Amino acid sequence: MSVETEEKDYTKHVEDIEIKAAYDNLIMLLEQESYEPFREEFLKLHEYEQGEFFSLLNDEDREKLYHLLSPKEVADFFDTLSISNEEMEEILTSMDARYAAQVLGAMQYDNAADIMNFLPKEVMMSFLALMKKEDREEIRILMNYEDDTAGGIMTTEFVSIDSEMTVHEAMVHLRKVAPDSETIYYLFVTDINNKLVGIISLRDLIIADEDEYIGDIMKERVISVNVADDQEQVAYMMRDYDFLAVPVLDYQEHLVGIITADDIMDVIQEEAEEDYYRLAGMSDEGSPLDDSSFTAAKKRLPWLIGLTLMGMITATMLSTFEETLEKVALLGAFIPIIGGMSGNAGTQSLAVAVRGLATGEIKRVSLLKLAIKDILTGMMTGFTCAVLLFIIITILFGQPVVGIIVSISLFVAMTFATLSGTFIPMGMSKFGIDPAVASGPFITTSNDIISLMIYFSLANALMSALL
Amino acid sequence: MSVETEEKDYTKHVEDIEIKAAYDNLIMLLEQESYEPFREEFLKLHEYEQGEFFSLLNDEDREKLYHLLSPKEVADFFDTLSISNEEMEEILTSMDARYAAQVLGAMQYDNAADIMNFLPKEVMMSFLALMKKEDREEIRILMNYEDDTAGGIMTTEFVSIDSEMTVHEAMVHLRKVAPDSETIYYLFVTDINNKLVGIISLRDLIIADEDEYIGDIMKERVISVNVADDQEQVAYMMRDYDFLAVPVLDYQEHLVGIITADDIMDVIQEEAEEDYYRLAGMSDEGSPLDDSSFTAAKKRLPWLIGLTLMGMITATMLSTFEETLEKVALLGAFIPIIGGMSGNAGTQSLAVAVRGLATGEIKRVSLLKLAIKDILTGMMTGFTCAVLLFIIITILFGQPVVGIIVSISLFVAMTFATLSGTFIPMGMSKFGIDPAVASGPFITTSNDIISLMIYFSLANALMSALL
Repeated sequence: MSVETEEKDYTKHVEDIEIKAAYDNLIMLLEQESYEPFREEFLKLHEYEQGEFFSLLNDEDREKLYHLLSPKEVADFFDTLSISNEEMEEILTSMDARYAAQVLGAMQYDNAADIMNFLPKEVMMSFLALMKKEDREEIRILMNYEDDTAGGIMTTEFVSIDSEMTVHEAMVHLRKVAPDSETIYYLFVTDINNKLVGIISLRDLIIADEDEYIGDIMKERVISVNVADDQEQVAYMMRDYDFLAVPVLDYQEHLVGIITADDIMDVIQEEAEEDYYRLAGMSDEGSPLDDSSFTAAKKRLPWLIGLTLMGMITATMLSTFEETLEKVALLGAFIPIIGGMSGNAGTQSLAVAVRGLATGEIKRVSLLKLAIKDILTGMMTGFTCAVLLFIIITILFGQPVVGIIVSISLFVAMTFATLSGTFIPMGMSKFGIDPAVASGPFITTSNDIISLMIYFSLANALMSALL
Repeated sequence: MSVETEEKDYTKHVEDIEIKAAYDNLIMLLEQESYEPFREEFLKLHEYEQGEFFSLLNDEDREKLYHLLSPKEVADFFDTLSISNEEMEEILTSMDARYAAQVLGAMQYDNAADIMNFLPKEVMMSFLALMKKEDREEIRILMNYEDDTAGGIMTTEFVSIDSEMTVHEAMVHLRKVAPDSETIYYLFVTDINNKLVGIISLRDLIIADEDEYIGDIMKERVISVNVADDQEQVAYMMRDYDFLAVPVLDYQEHLVGIITADDIMDVIQEEAEEDYYRLAGMSDEGSPLDDSSFTAAKKRLPWLIGLTLMGMITATMLSTFEETLEKVALLGAFIPIIGGMSGNAGTQSLAVAVRGLATGEIKRVSLLKLAIKDILTGMMTGFTCAVLLFIIITILFGQPVVGIIVSISLFVAMTFATLSGTFIPMGMSKFGIDPAVASGPFITTSNDIISLMIYFSLANALMSALL
């Protein structure tokens, strides 16, 4: 971590200089083998910083670290690491197997379950066998849920209380279970069958009289999600309702887990970034910056090959206009601008449509209204750019007929592109295809084909005027 | 709100059917003028749902609503509305001025400050004059901070306690101030000069003995931000550290406000979406779906006009190759594919670079390593697509020389584009220009120019072989 002092430093926050010095000091203690001082200083750091420090260490120093920390202490910062599953597998398999199993068992169960689901089967089975029984059971439950669903991101470490308890009894219970709960800020009230019957916030609990019954002061109407709900929907709901945590129920309304706001922050960013990368026609798995060039090439190739093929369709179509080009070669100079402008207009519409579909906002708008707006927007932008082009072409090249052909083609192409950029993704979504798959490159290429067809057909029609 | 039953419903959650029925019922009560039953049912809803219901009402029904609810009750759901500033202005100016001022004063201060900063000056001054003194003062303070900084998104409604207090005294104080605090889950310990000296979570407070002193159990090392810090940096920090709230300090380390996790969720999504829209070459102000076609055209035009002008540079450059095109018109058919493929390759690199710069991750990677990776990735993708193209062109058109020219140009162009898509934004960021401004369209157009120059120069050089 370097210390930056320029104003536009993207990673600076208040403690940077101190943290860097702290890390350097720790590395020194570790290599000098001053183990007690190392432990003392290390455990003063926030878990996120412990994780940052850990990423700076080489394998040898990491080995030393494992000998100095208990599995729980290691698990605490392992929970904060944002590394690929491959890297985590490497790390865990480099440790003593029992130690690794205990670290996994001491991590937050939802994180451990994600890792376990990734590990090769034999590795996973041995770790399961080597961890504590209660950890093994909880993690097994969570491993069964699909990634990207509520079940896949929930944790089972929540606080449930009885409606028959008094506030005083609830507080006593709370103090006991607090260390093991991911959040104590909402308490979930369940009946004897473990069905969710109410919820009470810690805020309301401490404001209440000690003798009141939970059942009398709890909120009975609880907003919850189902284990199978998509994580993106859960994220938007939590963001809309400003919840710190939301309960997860199974089909019989039993309370099986909770999802906390901090997990959701990650989901919100993940989902927005997913759309972002797709707009560029890339898969977003893993962390793109860390990819080897081979991996990066692999991710980008599917789209690029698809585009190459689509580009050949455009080329083949254009080759039928070879004669036209021979007669008026100047027409060729404007091919990129026609294709490019309609492509850009289409991508702009697409961007709005894909986000609108993802956040659910697009449902509130009537389709007819949307189409009319798009046509008008396309006509306005198309008209402006067309007039601009006509003026420039006439002045620069002294060829007003070419100017007219280019302008009219641009106008029609941009209007059409603006419309298609909205409705192609909507149509895809209606058929159950992920609209973000209809990403920028796909739409721009189809717009290319249509706009250039209009262009050359118009040129042929006005050929007499051109020669 | 329509009830959807298809599986791919983007807005469905557990309570949808009940909520729809609840809203219909409320509208009926409102129009029948059954005011007591209406209030009772309305206040049972979560504030977010109250906000949703409000958006369904026409102006006449909203008027009725204002007469049935206290300013505080209206403020509670106004805090949840995600509408444009223009819409909010319309709503507030349609109310009685005193009532509007009281609603603003009862809203969360950071939200009120944002709205006030948008209102026309006379309106803003009257509202300030008509609200309660303590609300006026708090809101005025927040209005002075720039949008998009910690100061601009913080709230002043936090709980501060003295290190000399016992746990018991702190709990008593907490119960008193809880109703007015945005969060009570962290308590901030300040000294006599209001400087931040420590922090204690509610969890730790309730686990502790009643007689312990706050000073003995609080955490002294507090991670904080400065009022002028960029909101995006605050968001990533909170996401990394999993904080529910973070204290905001001024330059003398006085505690002036806090930022809570729910506000940050909005920031995280905002920032990711900002980059998303910019990749498409659009400004992201407001909510794109609600824009009139005129507003939408206005937002998109700057980029489109810029692109038109850049496209003219390409066209002018291409026009110098008019002769070449006349001789071998088939060359024209491949113009879109050369320009398009290098544009896409560049956009893919750009997407990774912009996100890397925004999240600060790009700093950990050495520039040289990055350049080498990019060149290799570009060469691998370029080579694959080039070979593919050569094969197809030779088979389809029986013109291997054209095939070679197209393939070589593509290979060089894509290698170059992959590299430029990473380093142009990095260079812009070094000079303090927002890298997301170097958005997709800009890079694709510059790649167009370079790739087509290579293409036609190569064609000229091999002209004898072509004829």
